Parts: sequence; structure tokens; C-alpha cells
Amino acid sequence: MEYRRLGRTGLQLSALSYGAWVTFGRQVGRSDAREIMALAYDRGVNFFDNAETYNAGDAERLMGDVLADLRFPRDSYCVSSKVFFGGTTHPKPTQRGLSRKHVTEACHQALQRLRVDYLDLYFCHRADPDTPIAETVWAMDALIRQGKVLYWGTSEWTADEIAEAHDVAQTEHLHAPSMEQPQYNLLHRERVEIEYEPLYERYGMGTTIWSPLASGLLTGKYNDGVPNDSRLGHPDFAWLRDRLLNDGGAGLKSVRKLAAIAGDLGMSLTQLALVWCLKNPNVSTVMLGASRKSQLEDNLGAIDHLSKLDDATMYRIDQALQ
Amino acid sequence: MEYRRLGRTGLQLSALSYGAWVTFGRQVGRSDAREIMALAYDRGVNFFDNAETYNAGDAERLMGDVLADLRFPRDSYCVSSKVFFGGTTHPKPTQRGLSRKHVTEACHQALQRLRVDYLDLYFCHRADPDTPIAETVWAMDALIRQGKVLYWGTSEWTADEIAEAHDVAQTEHLHAPSMEQPQYNLLHRERVEIEYEPLYERYGMGTTIWSPLASGLLTGKYNDGVPNDSRLGHPDFAWLRDRLLNDGGAGLKSVRKLAAIAGDLGMSLTQLALVWCLKNPNVSTVMLGASRKSQLEDNLGAIDHLSKLDDATMYRIDQALQ
Amino acid sequence: MEYRRLGRTGLQLSALSYGAWVTFGRQVGRSDAREIMALAYDRGVNFFDNAETYNAGDAERLMGDVLADLRFPRDSYCVSSKVFFGGTTHPKPTQRGLSRKHVTEACHQALQRLRVDYLDLYFCHRADPDTPIAETVWAMDALIRQGKVLYWGTSEWTADEIAEAHDVAQTEHLHAPSMEQPQYNLLHRERVEIEYEPLYERYGMGTTIWSPLASGLLTGKYNDGVPNDSRLGHPDFAWLRDRLLNDGGAGLKSVRKLAAIAGDLGMSLTQLALVWCLKNPNVSTVMLGASRKSQLEDNLGAIDHLSKLDDATMYRIDQALQ
Amino acid sequence: MEYRRLGRTGLQLSALSYGAWVTFGRQVGRSDAREIMALAYDRGVNFFDNAETYNAGDAERLMGDVLADLRFPRDSYCVSSKVFFGGTTHPKPTQRGLSRKHVTEACHQALQRLRVDYLDLYFCHRADPDTPIAETVWAMDALIRQGKVLYWGTSEWTADEIAEAHDVAQTEHLHAPSMEQPQYNLLHRERVEIEYEPLYERYGMGTTIWSPLASGLLTGKYNDGVPNDSRLGHPDFAWLRDRLLNDGGAGLKSVRKLAAIAGDLGMSLTQLALVWCLKNPNVSTVMLGASRKSQLEDNLGAIDHLSKLDDATMYRIDQALQ
Repeated sequence: MEYRRLGRTGLQLSALSYGAWVTFGRQVGRSDAREIMALAYDRGVNFFDNAETYNAGDAERLMGDVLADLRFPRDSYCVSSKVFFGGTTHPKPTQRGLSRKHVTEACHQALQRLRVDYLDLYFCHRADPDTPIAETVWAMDALIRQGKVLYWGTSEWTADEIAEAHDVAQTEHLHAPSMEQPQYNLLHRERVEIEYEPLYERYGMGTTIWSPLASGLLTGKYNDGVPNDSRLGHPDFAWLRDRLLNDGGAGLKSVRKLAAIAGDLGMSLTQLALVWCLKNPNVSTVMLGASRKSQLEDNLGAIDHLSKLDDATMYRIDQALQ
Repeated sequence: MEYRRLGRTGLQLSALSYGAWVTFGRQVGRSDAREIMALAYDRGVNFFDNAETYNAGDAERLMGDVLADLRFPRDSYCVSSKVFFGGTTHPKPTQRGLSRKHVTEACHQALQRLRVDYLDLYFCHRADPDTPIAETVWAMDALIRQGKVLYWGTSEWTADEIAEAHDVAQTEHLHAPSMEQPQYNLLHRERVEIEYEPLYERYGMGTTIWSPLASGLLTGKYNDGVPNDSRLGHPDFAWLRDRLLNDGGAGLKSVRKLAAIAGDLGMSLTQLALVWCLKNPNVSTVMLGASRKSQLEDNLGAIDHLSKLDDATMYRIDQALQ
Repeated sequence: MEYRRLGRTGLQLSALSYGAWVTFGRQVGRSDAREIMALAYDRGVNFFDNAETYNAGDAERLMGDVLADLRFPRDSYCVSSKVFFGGTTHPKPTQRGLSRKHVTEACHQALQRLRVDYLDLYFCHRADPDTPIAETVWAMDALIRQGKVLYWGTSEWTADEIAEAHDVAQTEHLHAPSMEQPQYNLLHRERVEIEYEPLYERYGMGTTIWSPLASGLLTGKYNDGVPNDSRLGHPDFAWLRDRLLNDGGAGLKSVRKLAAIAGDLGMSLTQLALVWCLKNPNVSTVMLGASRKSQLEDNLGAIDHLSKLDDATMYRIDQALQ
Repeated sequence: MEYRRLGRTGLQLSALSYGAWVTFGRQVGRSDAREIMALAYDRGVNFFDNAETYNAGDAERLMGDVLADLRFPRDSYCVSSKVFFGGTTHPKPTQRGLSRKHVTEACHQALQRLRVDYLDLYFCHRADPDTPIAETVWAMDALIRQGKVLYWGTSEWTADEIAEAHDVAQTEHLHAPSMEQPQYNLLHRERVEIEYEPLYERYGMGTTIWSPLASGLLTGKYNDGVPNDSRLGHPDFAWLRDRLLNDGGAGLKSVRKLAAIAGDLGMSLTQLALVWCLKNPNVSTVMLGASRKSQLEDNLGAIDHLSKLDDATMYRIDQALQ
């Protein structure tokens, strides 16, 4: 495994990490989760991502049970949570958002569900237009000073919102956000490559990438339609299916070209999509969401192909995407 | 129920909330309190107001028992206390005021009486001329950093005193007050509408309104004299009776006109008085003090009439008050 | 009892308070201490002063036992400790002074001996030329933020040293010292009246006065020599006896004149000496050190004579001291 | 024993202290460690140095057992740890370096191994090019505010790195480093005497010296070759042996001249080497690493010869080193 600093922090994350998002507590049950996390850790993965909202808290409960069961030394891995959407199906007004009340209570709840004494990373899952950024920065700083959180960050905030958080932190002598968790993949590049550009140098922000496979589109499995047993075949993800596949076929066309490149390089399209993210030096880690052990094995194998993405290949990829 | 941000904070309070003030532990006993709070919560009320001085601590003890009994999720509601007058009948010199000693000890005592780990809101019940505002701001900030209080505020401070608290907080990098708890109703408007005007925009202060019914005067129940079983009929409130009814009848005359407007709009005078407060965008929540379940039902129903107070009606109300 | 603010803080101390200094654990044993403290509290005394060094920790242990026994409500009184000389007979190099290590450890030890969760007042018993003032200010501030101390102060520091502590606190946003514990009495006035003058207005410092009776000289009991059973008759206080009585008789001559004035006013010399201290508006409290209940009764009675010290009498006293 | 302030702090350390480095848990077992520490404490040593990496945590475990066994009063001595290299043989990426995660976790682990509630001194064992200095300063400050560390410092950082730490601390109102732990001895002088020169006056840094005997070279025991049972005879120290003895013999030649000077002064070469370090006023303490009680006795005896190093002798020593 390769390790990278989380932005300019001193924290070293595995280049490939594991996220519980849509799978934990839904497709993935206790024994599968145990196998998956054991395999990931064994191969050097040291960051396990989670959020209060993933399956209404069940993803954290499941991960907490597995962590307690597997007994990895606490200092050998990182675990995260995210706050914003609430940890229940129908959150009440005080049970969501980025108020000091919810940021604080959600942290305590995540610690209980994950069965740890502190979160290594704690994200604001979205920006909250109904809470001043200063209130959230103060609340995050307090959690860090109390030892309940080590690094805090944002997810899908605009560059301006992140800059404001840094301004508040500097003025008030508080801990600033250290990382962003943006969507980033071959089909979704603008925010990470353009909008966030000033944040890396100026604030030393790192990024923990979600959806590196564009919800499976970059595995090529939808090239010939949506199978019933896939995530996009599930009724809950109808909206995602519509968004991904109904663009007049441009997306799928690019995907087929990329598959050809991957084939030429002796790797799967999935692996190409993953290592392509890692070519970006501002990417700290790419989160995998595999729901099966074999799938995870394949994903983790991607790291061995990183060196194949030389300048010529990167150019060829850009051409395929135009 | 409608929810509003507490000023510019991220905390969403129900537009109508419940205060234990004169009733808890006096007119209202354990089983009534249980029924009232259950009803309020059921209808969406998420803020329960209290103070160390309400019935010398008994109002907090009663609310704490009921909260423990009803087991609302802790993150679904807010509870407050207030410090200044002391939590006993005859407080000693160190048992009242806004010194760091009393602010700190009163918080710990309120947490015990209310049986919670932290107060969502903690108010300075009055300004204390014998304590520097800076000392109180430092003490409140310490409680917030220790996780014992989420938001602190003032009650019936002058606008200048509140501004000074904000100045200290800014200079020393401390948590500033987030809210005021002023008296506000159709008969008592100046402080909230004029004196505090600069505070809303400049500091983002919210307000939690007490006495929206002018101690019952705006229910119309004193229009024909003071019944023995009303609050004003109680010997302890003789001073209030004198103040409210002995103004040469001008107050009662206005009240009768308002009752007519309410009738025209198909609501009770009480409901008119409550929603009138909510028309002020700087009002975060209006605290109800109902001592009977049926009364609370009627009060909570007011929210449905809010839209009836259009510009023409508001003008008619102002005319009635002149 | 009269109560006064501790300087500009919000803390109200009884004008007469009680100090354990030379008596506790030496002349005064458990049952006497219990009687004395019960009487003092009953008469309105709300400040009990102590120090790590008083009888090598035994004065604190005794006071802690009595406090636990008498069960005064914790918020109704104040208790102090002081750090510098060490809490053992022969302190090692790290067991004395004002280093962060000793300031912190001495606080924890005082809390254990006094059997309380926090000290209301915590004094630096002397200035420490071998510790930067900044280090001590940081250490005191940390104890206040941790809730282990409410107010910190100094004892017998120079005005310049106190001013430096305030400068550090202002620059670094830390809690500044709130009070000084100086010696002050009819025969020892310069520091409190002249050297400290700028501190009261500029920093709002309060003072807790020790030795208001000049080690007994102002009781008049040494007017005819030193009795064997008095403090000055004890071999440990030979140095004090020498200093007080060997000034060519000038001190004793003044004392005899003061006794005459007291007689004219219908009070004892002791009472005159005590209330004279209280005439100084910068005196927050005068600490009594009575070792017998009857003596304490007499001392506490002084407060009733305060109004007798009018301008003419104060002038007459100044004349007697020249 | 002589005591010195740790730089400008108020902490008084014994001029000679004891370090567990290469010996504890390797040459020195439980009963020897007990004897050595008892003797050192008995002779006035009040600082016991350790690090997470010394024998992969075993040196701290052994010292913790002995401290628990000997029951020295906690306020009568100082104990340290150091963070950087990790507390296991093969640390994972998050288990080493100066990230907030590792600095915090390593502190908690050292407290457990040493069986104490706080570290008196906590060092960054090396500078970490992969962590911003600001992150480490914030993490150290948090540990001090939480009461888990009293003073933090660096070991073998460059003067520029140390200055940057002070700049961050001043700007952000954090605790700055108080001490450096550099190598310093007759054969290795430049860093302490020249590079660090500005740090003493400007920042009040103290120094805790390691390797005062140049890994045994200054005991003279290698003058005639390397014995098998010496540290340099151990395979693990082959690299050190090569470095020390393969300089064309210049080092050994100087050592023989110094031995002659020591003989003239009536002390051993070892003792000369130790007291020579103490002649430098910027040296706070010199750490001994004796693995045998008799050796420690001899080392501690050095302090009695300190006064013999007058100006003429210091000149003679400098000549011998040229």
C-alpha cells in the first residue's frame, strides 16, 4: 500500500481506503463486513469512513461492532464520521444541520455507535446555510480540544465556504478544517481540479475522495444496461440511475473508450478509474465501497498499476473523455 | 409547528415553546406537568424554559423528573436554566448574582435538578451591577468549552450591556451571548422593537419571549375583574394585579378592542396575542406558561392563525393600542 | 455581617473572614476548630483562608475535616489555599515555588486535603524570582479553565510583579489575578496604601488582609511584656517577638495611645484595629486568626463599631501613630 | 546534588539525571533498575528520562513498574517520554512521527506504560519533515491544557525549527517548547555551543544532555579496543562502533590526553567528561545512562569535582581537543 499525507497535516492515510456509505447495514451484513474490513486492514488500508446518516446510524453501529471484534490497535487506523443529515430516518429540527448542538451531539452519538473514544476525522457532510460557519468552526474546535476529534473537515462545501472557515479559525485562534471529502472521478472533475485549486496551496487541505467509480458507471457494468441486483437496480437509487444513464449516451461512450485503454494497459476499467484519481497529487486517499470481498481484492490491486499511468496514457485518457 | 433559528445561530426552536415560570411546582404538580410536557412535545414544542429561581429550584426539579420519565431523545429538545436570583428562598451573598462562582455553581446545580448533562440555553436572568460583564462572559465561555452549556444569553439586560458582552467576547476570543429573554407583548413593546433593534443585525441575537399574554391580561380574563382562582387572584401576585389593572382603565380598553379584532378573525384574544408576537421576525420563540392541558391546547392552536395577521390587520391592531 | 466585593470581581466576601494560619493544627485541634468555624459561619463569615505551608499541610487537613463535618452548602462559603513554600517540612526542589509543576500539584494536593472539588481562591504565597511570571499566569489560567480554581491571586508581591502578571494575562488572553493578600494593620500601612494604589483602579484588585492585629501587638496583650502562653511566647516565634518589641518602644507607645482612643469609643483596642482596616475601601476582607471561641466572638463584634470611626476619629488615630 | 532551572522555566532539575535509553529492558532488568533508580533518587536525582522507542516501549514499562514499586512522592521527581519513532518495532504509518494523532496517542500510551497521570517533560524525539510544526505545537499545547503534560520540548531539532515552534506559539497563544534534548560532550559541541546560542537568551530554552560520555568513548574504556561485553561490542551497535573509532585515531588521541588531565585533578576521565558539560551554563541537566549501580555511584560522584574545572583547566581541556 502507498501512504499519503492528508493535505499538509502529519496524518498518513492509505492511498486506498474504505467507505461504509451505501453498503454497510444494507447489502453488507456483520460477517461480510468483518471479512471486508479484515482484508482491507491486512492489505494496508488504514482509513475507514462513515457518517451518521449512512443507513440511519446502522453503518456506524456495524462498523463499531466489527472494530471491537477485530481489535486492530487503535493507533494503527483512522475512523471517521460525518454530521449534517441526522442519524435517524426522520430527524427533528435540532437533530440535523451544523448547529453547535447537533455537531456536538452527533459526535457523541458517533463515538457510541463506533465504540471508540475519539474520531480521527469528523466531517461536516454538507454546508448548512442555516448555521453561521463561525458557529460550526467553534464547535469543531471545542471537540478537538476535548480530545473527541483529531482532524475536522468538510464535504462538498464550496471553495468560498471553506475559505471562510479558515478565516474564522485564523482570527479566533481555532483549529481550521484539514480536509474535504468531494466526489471525484473521471466523469466529475471540475470541483476538485478547478474550484478547489486555491485551497491546496493556501490552506494545505487534503481530500478524501468518494465515488471514484461514479456509482459503478466506471466499472463498466452498466455498459449494457442496469442489472437488477446492482445498486442502480435498487428502487432507492432510481434517481441516480436516471442521472447517470440519461445523458444521451455520452457518458457511456466515454466509458467504453476508457475500458479499451484499461485493457491495453492490462488492468480492469475499475482499476484504471481508481489509479487515475491517485494521479492527482491533491488527492489524499480514494475511498472504496466494495460490498464483496472479491471486489475489494480487485480494487486494492489497482495500486500496483499506478505507475502505468504515464504522461502519454494520461493524455490518451483526456482525449477519451472529450 | 413552525421552527425558527435562534437569531443567527444554527439552533432551530419551535415558534411556540413552554416555560415553567410561575406554574411548575406551584399550580402544576407532577402528573399535570407530565401531561403538559407530553402534549407540548407531541405538538412539536422543542424548548422547555426554566430558571434556578422558579419556586426556589422546585420548577427545575419537577421538570427534571418529568424529562427523565418521558424519555424524549436528548437531541430532540432544548432545556434552559437562568442564573442570578439564586436557587433558594434566602440566598446568601455568594449564592446569587453573576460572579464566576455563582454562574458556575448554579449551572452545576441546574444540571443536577434538571437531570441532564448539559443545558442547551443558559441565561443571565438579569444584569448584575456588582459583577463586571467580562467576568460573566469568561465564566459562560468556560462552561461552553467544558460542554456544560451550548448557548448562553441574557434576560432583560439593556442593549448597552449586551453590546459590552459582545465586545469582551470579540476581544478575548470567547463565546458571545446568542439570545435575550425579554418580556414582549401587545402592551409592552419598546425594548424589543426599539432598544434592541441594533442587536439583531449587528450581533445576530435571537429572542425567547416571556409574558406574551401580559400575565394573563391579554387573555381577556380580567376584563370583568380578577377571579380568585387566577394567578392575579393569588396574594403573592398582588403587586402585579396593582400594576396591570390600575392604569385608569386604558389597558383594559385596548384589550377589549383587541378581543373584537380576534373575534372578527375567528380566533381567541389569547391566540391573537401569541401570533402577534410571532409576526416580529426578531422573535425566535414565544414561551407559553399554560397551567392546564386544555389551555395549552388552545395556545398551541394559535400557530394556525398566524397567516391571518396581514398588513391590514396589523394596522388595525396598532390603532386599537393607541 | 457586612459583605464586600473582592475588588471589582463579582465575589462577595464577608468583611471579616477567618484564616487558619498559625493556629490550625497547632494551638487549635479538631473540636476547637469545629466550634470556631461553626461560630464564624453562623455569624456570616463566608471565607476561610488556608495555605499548603500552614503546619505543613495539617491546617488544610484539619479544615477539610471540619468542612466535611459541618456540611455548609458548598456555594455558601469560599475556601482558599496558597502555593509557594511547599506542603511538607523539608520540600524538595520541585515541591516549592511557582513552577507550573508545583502550582499544579499543590492545587491537587490542597483539593485533597481540604476535601473540596475546587478552590474559590488560590494565591501565590510569595513571588518566585526563579520562575517567570508568565509561566505562573499560564498555570493559574489552566486551573481556572479546568474548574479547579475560581479566582487566583498573589500574596506579598510587589506592585510591579502584579502589573506584569496583568500584562501577560491581557496579551495572552488569560485570567488575570483578582486579589492580593498583604499584611496590613495600623503599624504596617505603606504597601497597601501607597505601593498598591495604582492596582485598585487600574486592575480592580481586591485585598484579603492578614495580620490586622500585627501578630497580637494591637491587642495590647504585650503592652506589659510577653506572656508565656501567647504566640510570641512560643520559641518558634522568637524572631517575631524580637522584631515587634525591639524598636525602642515606639510601637508600644503608639499602641497605648490607640488603646485610649478605643476606650473612649467604647470598644476594645483589638476591635479598633480591625475596623480601622475596614475603613480602607480597597480592603475586601480582614482575616481573623482567633484560636479561641471567645476571642472570635469579640473580634466579630468589631463590625458593629465600624460607624464610630468618623473623620475626626481617623485623624486622632493618625496622630497617635506619628 | 546541585539543582538547575530548566532554562528559564521554574522547574528545578538535578544537575545529573538518569536516562533509560539503551539500558532499560536490555542490559538492565527489574531488580537492577530498582536498585539504580533508588540510588539515584537517594542522591538527589529528580529527573528520569525515557522515550516510547526505547526498547519498543519496554524501557517505559520497566521504569513504570519501578516507580510504582518505589513510591517516590509524585511531586518530588520528573519523568519524561519522547514521541517520534513509535513504541513498537515496526510502527505503521500512523504510529510514528509528530502528527496530532501520534503525538496524542503516544502520550496516552506513555502514561499507561509509565503508570503516571502526567508527564513532566514530553519531547519531540526528532523533527518531522512530514508534519507542519504548527500541528505539533497545537497538539502539545492541548496536552498541557488537559493536564497530561507539564513542559514540552524538542530533541535534535535545528535552531530554525525550534524558532518556528516559538513563532507559532506566540501567534496562536499556545505553550512554546521549554527545552531541547541534544547530544553534547567533549567531542560533540557545535550544536549546543553555536547553533543553539540564540535560543537560550531569546526563548529561555533549557537543555537536557544525552550522551555526555560519547557512548562510552569518554570513559576511556575503548582506549585499548572494544570489549565484547560493552555496548559497542553488541552487534546492534556496530554502526556506532564504526563511527566512533574509525576516525583515524584522532578521537582516541584526544581522549588519552583528557584522561591525563583527569588524573592530575584526582578524578576519573568519566567524571571529567560529565562535569565539563555542567560548566556550560546553558546545560540544565546531564543524563547518566549507567547500567550498573557501581558505575552510577562513580558518575554521581562527579558533581563533587565541578569546582576543579577552573579557567586554566578549561583552557587545558580545549587544547587537548584540538
